[in-house]
Amino acid sequence: MWTLRQSSMASTTPFHELIKKKRDGLKLTDADVGDMVAKVVSGEAADVQIGAMLMAMFLKGLDAEETASLTRHMVDSGDKLEWDEEWRELLVDKHSTGGVGDKVSLPLAPALAACGLKVPMMSGRGLDFTGGTLDKLESIRGFKVSQSVEAMRSALEDPGCFIVGPTARLAPADGELYKRRDVTGTVDSVPLITSSIVSKKVAEGTRALVMDIKVGSAALCKTEEAAKELARSIIDVAKLLDVPTTAVLTRMDVPIGRAVGNALEVAEAVRCLRGEGPADLEDLVCVLGGELLLMRGRALTRAAGRERIRTALRDGSALDRFRRMLERQGVSAADAEAVCAEPWRLLPRAARTTPVLAKRAGAVRGIAGLAIARACQRLGAGRSRPDQPLDLAVGVVLDDALHVGAAVHAGDVLMTVHHTHDLPDDVLDLLRTAVDIAEEAGPGDTRRDRVIVILS
Amino acid sequence: MWTLRQSSMASTTPFHELIKKKRDGLKLTDADVGDMVAKVVSGEAADVQIGAMLMAMFLKGLDAEETASLTRHMVDSGDKLEWDEEWRELLVDKHSTGGVGDKVSLPLAPALAACGLKVPMMSGRGLDFTGGTLDKLESIRGFKVSQSVEAMRSALEDPGCFIVGPTARLAPADGELYKRRDVTGTVDSVPLITSSIVSKKVAEGTRALVMDIKVGSAALCKTEEAAKELARSIIDVAKLLDVPTTAVLTRMDVPIGRAVGNALEVAEAVRCLRGEGPADLEDLVCVLGGELLLMRGRALTRAAGRERIRTALRDGSALDRFRRMLERQGVSAADAEAVCAEPWRLLPRAARTTPVLAKRAGAVRGIAGLAIARACQRLGAGRSRPDQPLDLAVGVVLDDALHVGAAVHAGDVLMTVHHTHDLPDDVLDLLRTAVDIAEEAGPGDTRRDRVIVILS
Repeated sequence: MWTLRQSSMASTTPFHELIKKKRDGLKLTDADVGDMVAKVVSGEAADVQIGAMLMAMFLKGLDAEETASLTRHMVDSGDKLEWDEEWRELLVDKHSTGGVGDKVSLPLAPALAACGLKVPMMSGRGLDFTGGTLDKLESIRGFKVSQSVEAMRSALEDPGCFIVGPTARLAPADGELYKRRDVTGTVDSVPLITSSIVSKKVAEGTRALVMDIKVGSAALCKTEEAAKELARSIIDVAKLLDVPTTAVLTRMDVPIGRAVGNALEVAEAVRCLRGEGPADLEDLVCVLGGELLLMRGRALTRAAGRERIRTALRDGSALDRFRRMLERQGVSAADAEAVCAEPWRLLPRAARTTPVLAKRAGAVRGIAGLAIARACQRLGAGRSRPDQPLDLAVGVVLDDALHVGAAVHAGDVLMTVHHTHDLPDDVLDLLRTAVDIAEEAGPGDTRRDRVIVILS
Repeated sequence: MWTLRQSSMASTTPFHELIKKKRDGLKLTDADVGDMVAKVVSGEAADVQIGAMLMAMFLKGLDAEETASLTRHMVDSGDKLEWDEEWRELLVDKHSTGGVGDKVSLPLAPALAACGLKVPMMSGRGLDFTGGTLDKLESIRGFKVSQSVEAMRSALEDPGCFIVGPTARLAPADGELYKRRDVTGTVDSVPLITSSIVSKKVAEGTRALVMDIKVGSAALCKTEEAAKELARSIIDVAKLLDVPTTAVLTRMDVPIGRAVGNALEVAEAVRCLRGEGPADLEDLVCVLGGELLLMRGRALTRAAGRERIRTALRDGSALDRFRRMLERQGVSAADAEAVCAEPWRLLPRAARTTPVLAKRAGAVRGIAGLAIARACQRLGAGRSRPDQPLDLAVGVVLDDALHVGAAVHAGDVLMTVHHTHDLPDDVLDLLRTAVDIAEEAGPGDTRRDRVIVILS
């Protein structure tokens, strides 16, 4: 049987020979991949060679074994967090391919902790149209996304979860490849996406994973077919790395919940943690958390798992874990208390708000999450470049009545823009046209249930 | 009708979008290619991007129009030599894809000049197993491969030819791409080879070209099929750049002539210029030169063209042009005279010679040019790295009696090694096994005539 550690012999193949091998569509051995990763990390491989190799991998692909090799060597290129052996069956995490208004991690991690699991969550920052969990959390005064390993271990002990940023020491090879993919047109590669995601999850020490793979106009995967291919790859590779994984494909056209923008999303996450919805966000948290409870034997059925999460959101236990997590990560007790009780006592508010009004009457046929995200990016809520500072207060809140299938009248408020500077006309237009209002109602709100299929 | 100058509009497409376009197998417009070349030359394109683009071009290809665009923009990236308008129909050149013992340029350029043509020959240095005409010429004391444009023009006036190295100002974009191809496994790409060859020929100002495309074990193209593909590409692209081209496919398994090594090959070239053979070298010079005479209307038939070149080699007129070319390029009159009369009075000789003896009797079935070239490279006649200094005196001379089909006895001298340092056993073994001696004779010397097919 094939094993990942098939060969531990150092390969001495020159880098350009490795490129040629992949260029010709041949399978790289585990030693080849190890050699490649070592030379990327050491700087022995020249940039021009890494570019050529990325393109060869993009066009010729990597099979599950090659992708698992790449993932493992990425993990081995840095530190691997190892948690207490007694937690082995408890360590879980969720990862999303990125959506608009996706604040699921904020209620989910503490809800899972409230159900007795351990959640060592390494999250990311926003880039392009997708928001970042770390950015959102930083709108809470005092919150520190960087934590020592000892502090992380303590947080796993109690309250049972943390949400931190990846350190440079975790899978540095992934960082080296990732930063070159955007400029070389090699981002949309299933094996490269897979290895990047799974390497970070293995390195953080989780022992089970649920993937939220978004599908739709505001998602990485535009089609179900593409999403299924990515899901299959991640499930197969994570399995080869001993991290059982379930993938939930969910629709990502309409924003999740009502709020898009960093502080606005934290406030909505707190609302969810108080058991007050919004319904689609709560449902998604329950679906994703339920899968992990099922996988770890904490629920006998999928439905029971979901209900267990819902209970944690509604009985205050998840909110309590959230409050303790904030304290663990640098927020004062008073501030943590305030965020959980009345978030707007603490969170930064934008100086100005402007309603976006419907120009005509009709039925809502779509709410384009991508356009809303682009508008928020223009306001300063999202980044175009990795080093760009954010305005954490700005964003958009959809009106409670605005749903696909709803009837609107001319002059109705569709959403409220929270902004710091003057609102450019084109941003306002972008937001107005994000809501597709037709004379005739469409097939109704078929997208209320976001889940398309669950794969494992 | 499509023309090369279809669009002169500056494209503002970011480089990574150009990469994606080629990655997806789409056709690059002339503006796209111009944009790419400009960004490579200016340094705006990062190395990692150039590597990815080279691999995308390698794997997805370029059609004749794209290749012509690339070639033209490479030419436009630097200076283009323009010669006197009255010479327009006289300017010719030959280019070879590189062989073992290939000293054809040395007799051919002066022979063409003796036939009234103008030969602005830009040649190259040896790398890996192929020798370089410039290196060979530098074994003649005083010879300067670098010449001013005015000196080149004077040389075209009289004696009618020069052989120089490419300047950095000629097609610099080709240099920028070329130096990155070896390390990225993107050398063996028909469009990239085509644009590299044709750009330099267009930039040097030739108006007609004969390509010697080698086929065989010691050639870039291992198969006739590969050679024909390259020939077709070069003919089509050169035509789009207004340089009519004929391609001669020639066998390259056995070395050309008897000598391999820089000074040794110069001596053999002089022998050929004195009309003293060797026969296979003389034949090849006549074939290639004959095509150019035919193309430029200086001969009515192919056979007449070949005979015209043979006459120039045998009546001393080619040798006289060679002598005057040496003088033009820095060799003293006395030294030029000496090289042409008794080359070994001037050329550097290796300190030691060692015969390679046949270990067994039998019939010669093959003489592996590649193995001989590798052995010469080990002796110091060839480079492994571009900046490596050469030992111009060393090399190998095959015995006059050694031909495919010849009978040999154990102890017969197969060849003589000219070396400076001790001869390593493995190099001696490599040379001995380069001659394939079998008990039974093979089908005879079917490879005496090197020409496979002529395409135009």
